[in-house]
Amino acid sequence: MATILLTALAICASQTTASPTAGVPLGLELWPRSQRAARLDLDKQLAQSIDRESLAKWHDLVASVPHPAGSVGDAQVIASLKGAFEGMGLEAELHPFTAYLSSPVSASLALVAPVSQELSLVEDPLPGSPYSESEELDPYRLGWNAYSGSGDVTAGVVYANYGRLEDFARLKELGVDCTGQIVITRYGGNFRGFKAKFAEEAGAAALIIYTDPRDSGYGKGLESPEGGWANCDQIQRGSLKTLPWSGDPLTPGYEATKDAKRLNPESIALPTIPVQPVGWLAATQIMRRMRGQSVPGDWQGGMPFRYRLSGGEDLRIHLKVEQKRELVDTANVLGTLRGTESGEADPGIIIGCHHDAWVYGADDPTSGLIALLETARVLTNAAKEHGAPRRTITFAAWGAEEHGIIGSTEWVEGNLERLQAGGVMYINLDAAASGLRLGVSASPSLQTLFHGAASVVPQPQASPMGAGAVRGTPQQSALDAWRGGSNSLPNVGFLGGGSDHVSFLALAAIPSASVSARGAPGTAYHSLYDDLAWYRRVVGPDYESAALVAGIVTVAADRTARAELLPFDLAEPARATLRVLQSMMQRLTSGSGTQPELRELIASVREEIQIGERLQSKAHARAEEAGWTTGSAGRFNSLAGLLEQCWLSQNGLEGREWYKNLYTAPDESSGYASWPLPGLQKALVLATDEDIRKAVEELAVVVSNRRVFLGSVSSLLR
Amino acid sequence: MATILLTALAICASQTTASPTAGVPLGLELWPRSQRAARLDLDKQLAQSIDRESLAKWHDLVASVPHPAGSVGDAQVIASLKGAFEGMGLEAELHPFTAYLSSPVSASLALVAPVSQELSLVEDPLPGSPYSESEELDPYRLGWNAYSGSGDVTAGVVYANYGRLEDFARLKELGVDCTGQIVITRYGGNFRGFKAKFAEEAGAAALIIYTDPRDSGYGKGLESPEGGWANCDQIQRGSLKTLPWSGDPLTPGYEATKDAKRLNPESIALPTIPVQPVGWLAATQIMRRMRGQSVPGDWQGGMPFRYRLSGGEDLRIHLKVEQKRELVDTANVLGTLRGTESGEADPGIIIGCHHDAWVYGADDPTSGLIALLETARVLTNAAKEHGAPRRTITFAAWGAEEHGIIGSTEWVEGNLERLQAGGVMYINLDAAASGLRLGVSASPSLQTLFHGAASVVPQPQASPMGAGAVRGTPQQSALDAWRGGSNSLPNVGFLGGGSDHVSFLALAAIPSASVSARGAPGTAYHSLYDDLAWYRRVVGPDYESAALVAGIVTVAADRTARAELLPFDLAEPARATLRVLQSMMQRLTSGSGTQPELRELIASVREEIQIGERLQSKAHARAEEAGWTTGSAGRFNSLAGLLEQCWLSQNGLEGREWYKNLYTAPDESSGYASWPLPGLQKALVLATDEDIRKAVEELAVVVSNRRVFLGSVSSLLR
Repeated sequence: MATILLTALAICASQTTASPTAGVPLGLELWPRSQRAARLDLDKQLAQSIDRESLAKWHDLVASVPHPAGSVGDAQVIASLKGAFEGMGLEAELHPFTAYLSSPVSASLALVAPVSQELSLVEDPLPGSPYSESEELDPYRLGWNAYSGSGDVTAGVVYANYGRLEDFARLKELGVDCTGQIVITRYGGNFRGFKAKFAEEAGAAALIIYTDPRDSGYGKGLESPEGGWANCDQIQRGSLKTLPWSGDPLTPGYEATKDAKRLNPESIALPTIPVQPVGWLAATQIMRRMRGQSVPGDWQGGMPFRYRLSGGEDLRIHLKVEQKRELVDTANVLGTLRGTESGEADPGIIIGCHHDAWVYGADDPTSGLIALLETARVLTNAAKEHGAPRRTITFAAWGAEEHGIIGSTEWVEGNLERLQAGGVMYINLDAAASGLRLGVSASPSLQTLFHGAASVVPQPQASPMGAGAVRGTPQQSALDAWRGGSNSLPNVGFLGGGSDHVSFLALAAIPSASVSARGAPGTAYHSLYDDLAWYRRVVGPDYESAALVAGIVTVAADRTARAELLPFDLAEPARATLRVLQSMMQRLTSGSGTQPELRELIASVREEIQIGERLQSKAHARAEEAGWTTGSAGRFNSLAGLLEQCWLSQNGLEGREWYKNLYTAPDESSGYASWPLPGLQKALVLATDEDIRKAVEELAVVVSNRRVFLGSVSSLLR
Repeated sequence: MATILLTALAICASQTTASPTAGVPLGLELWPRSQRAARLDLDKQLAQSIDRESLAKWHDLVASVPHPAGSVGDAQVIASLKGAFEGMGLEAELHPFTAYLSSPVSASLALVAPVSQELSLVEDPLPGSPYSESEELDPYRLGWNAYSGSGDVTAGVVYANYGRLEDFARLKELGVDCTGQIVITRYGGNFRGFKAKFAEEAGAAALIIYTDPRDSGYGKGLESPEGGWANCDQIQRGSLKTLPWSGDPLTPGYEATKDAKRLNPESIALPTIPVQPVGWLAATQIMRRMRGQSVPGDWQGGMPFRYRLSGGEDLRIHLKVEQKRELVDTANVLGTLRGTESGEADPGIIIGCHHDAWVYGADDPTSGLIALLETARVLTNAAKEHGAPRRTITFAAWGAEEHGIIGSTEWVEGNLERLQAGGVMYINLDAAASGLRLGVSASPSLQTLFHGAASVVPQPQASPMGAGAVRGTPQQSALDAWRGGSNSLPNVGFLGGGSDHVSFLALAAIPSASVSARGAPGTAYHSLYDDLAWYRRVVGPDYESAALVAGIVTVAADRTARAELLPFDLAEPARATLRVLQSMMQRLTSGSGTQPELRELIASVREEIQIGERLQSKAHARAEEAGWTTGSAGRFNSLAGLLEQCWLSQNGLEGREWYKNLYTAPDESSGYASWPLPGLQKALVLATDEDIRKAVEELAVVVSNRRVFLGSVSSLLR
């Protein structure tokens, strides 16, 4: 039965890629035939307008000072960005908010026994890097994790690998007790906040998180300053917040205005134990002295000794962390390019990237922010030359992302109604440009849009980068390089967590995308070393990576802004849903009583695919022949624009009600990975028939609504 | 077409595993029904007779002195082994031979620039190990590789990963020139002799081979002396000989008697460049100073810095190696348990393991040699209690294996005729007991024999070992543990190279097997540390591993020795051939003109499977019902015993004519891996239709002969 249905699906799928749109430029299927050549000319002109020198200047503008959220540098960057938007002729405004942030007061780490020795919690300046040697850096040298508890602990140590749920379970299985111990984990495998959460749940007295050289240092390539990988000092800062809502810790679901009513900080689950990030030299000084049992094979990292699970009686260390948590004022910066057909309040297409950084943040986030600024510059100029687009484009530089995606969330919470009424899509560019290997994660409805944009932007031809770079050959498009020799078009991945798209997608159900080009040989992630010197040495001084991203985003945004019909893919969301459901079906034990329900849901999704594909064919035929009346185009756009919102659930996800989108959410125990159909995912983990049945019913309502919606669009074409 | 044939095969295969032999104890399919219960009783009694204390005593007897081939200790061990065989009541004899061996005179390694520093070429004594602290060790402390060239080189360095053919190709691709350089490779990935051969071919002036901590040290577990893995000093000795024949370098194809006519040593391809093995501390002192380009990702090992391809201008090292090569007298030791129906000259079933070691060799080879001695003791006692077996069993302790499989090869070359006339099978036990994870590589005709033996030997219940051990649960047989939860019986693997089975299989085409139980948490391979202290600490003082191996070999040998009909599997060899041909078929490019020929050969092999299976069913039915007459059993045994020899080719393999068995050979560029159907394998690498056609034709003759042979056996049953 399954085989027969799969074959049917394969036939359906091959029909859509076959003749009807043959010869039509990718992504322009719904464009009137007569306008396609002009559109391609404009695309080419936009891509050519991206200026590498301009990108370098934006980089100097933003990344020359340390600018963590709420700092002096932050205020300076906010003013610079507002000035930059104004200078382009955009309507610029600040969106101030007041967030509950944490900041370091002091920290120390020392061996107590068998020897007494202070361990370093700061990064040495790198020879040749003016940025890491700068005196203005002094307040920012200390490595720290935002929202750590404050405390003073002397105890033995336990090593917990990556500190994932399964790692702590394994420790228990192996008879190692974390109670009262200082747990050491390496970075990687999950969001660091979960390391702290699981350590605290396991009874740990404190947590040290280090960067293992196998994962990020000499295990990958040459170290800074000769190469780009983590040296023994490099420390990854970062937030530990894992609350069941995104944004400001004290204002879940509403905007963190100056005088908003706030939760009592005591009432929310921020870490209580001290947590300290360190480089691997400090970790070596502790871990080489551990004397307990040898680790399981895949727990071994790259330091030059066998790792052990526990330190033994003779090893004692002392960790003291003092932090303060307080309300801090900062702001988002918004620049608006007004569309001719958008309403006054419509945000339209939103392109965003945060502006706050752990220190300089040349790569994270600024490599994305410069692509955003260059996109804004080119599109503003295009508006002058070719007239304003139909749809408004909003450029947003978000504040306080690093503490927990705060600025974007507060803006979405404060503008939810007008966003859901007049928002078209969201493109996120956090740390988007560190290599030439293009990657797009997006709502499936945007897949064709990005295929189309990548098909008209050339893949950069040369770059001084080493391993991991994808170089184009002459005349190769970014799409050619992206598909990497495959005949089929690349599937965009589901969006996970960890950046500013989260509230757009999970709270407002706006079609969202994250675009990046990565692959440079190194990482300075969240460290002092992520400065312009590192970036220009490792990613390159030529700005080809940022130009690639800016080119694709410029074309995708301008096409969407100027299109008569929203260029959304109406069948791909159901296809992606089907793939997820089919893999879930395989995970269902054969004894489960819920197979029939799931099978019915799958059949229903298959119908949605067929309706979507018929609709696309008809819409395409109309574009080829008669064209659309303004009225029918408007109704098509309203319906297509709202289709994503069918996934919204009033009640939200179980246990984290802030998340309203039943289609996708970040997963619950790593924080970064994508979790398509999260309600059903969770029910499958719990694995009771009742939970699964409930989740399937909930999804069945959505799928049925989407079919009705698609049916309404279809009726416009009769 | 292929699919239909595959289905047909699946049906064939399932027929053999189905009803006809249901309820018959594994491996006793050809036993007269009335004798099976008694056979199982005897099996049980034999398995229970294996004595752990006796195994420990054999271990003390052999591994208490350093005994490399030709040394004073070697002569002492030879005398002890002869005495042990005599003490059991076996007919014991020495088989002396004179081989061209190499021995170390002196060696030194030093950094010359940027600093001047001597590097260690010896292993420090381990605290707590009386063996590695012993003064009698002094002549054996220097690490060395047999058959290294002598020379004195000062040069820069190049790192070549494992020194495989593909590694040197990659270096060339990356623009790194080995000419005149001292190449450094790590151990692993191939036989060390090929590292030297390829380095010399690449123009290297010298070669250093080190043990990487990721492959054998802290990357795997705790180091010696706390754990069992390589510490920073541990050096792997070993031979570099890669001549196109096995055994003594100067007497290919004939016995190396005292006065044999010998080749001129200048005429054979032994290494000319100096080659030196080192521990990873010495390698670190060189490699951390390299300044060239970063290595490809999978070339990185476990030392705490990024590996580089070349050292750069500023790094110079000095290596001096002096060795001598000369004729050396040593001997094999043979003990014979005479069978009642074997002829005077028939070696019958041969069980072998070499006795020479690099130093003490507690694991390699002695853990196998003690299993052999215990098997001999138990079977000699069984002969006293139950009467001598039908077939002779020969126990062989081979000399000078470590230099290049010399003793066994010289014996086979000197006894080829009587071996091919009266040899039944060969079981090799080199370093066979270092854990509880059973592994059997064997001629496919022996597969059922070892399944059967493993089914009556209990899997050891407890052992002090850590990771890697396979522990039995109560009432679990060794076969249960071996199949590891799978419903189907394990396929025995093809035999590769690197030990004393090579000449039995590749020169004489005697059905051969290698039995081992491995998985202990550590390795002291070819190092000074491979002593009784290491073995009893890491593998365990309980001798469960050696008892497991001895139990299985004892049962397999005694069943074969006492069986009326040789218990060989007559269909499995063709099934294994078919699997190999099918995977080769997939490697043939679709454009190849030789597909029809290969397809015809496959069809012919399928017929052999059918004939073999029919024959087995009939033989089994006869065993169930009437039984065999002595005459027909004799003819069955003659034919079944000669079936393997159908694979012999007068001309031998192309380019290495010494190898006569077209069924399997060690591969040509790693030396350890198995290469089933080597002629065709090589033709596929060359990939010309003519070569492939020639190889297929050659195989077609063999397969046709085997079908005729099987048909003759079958006619006995009409």
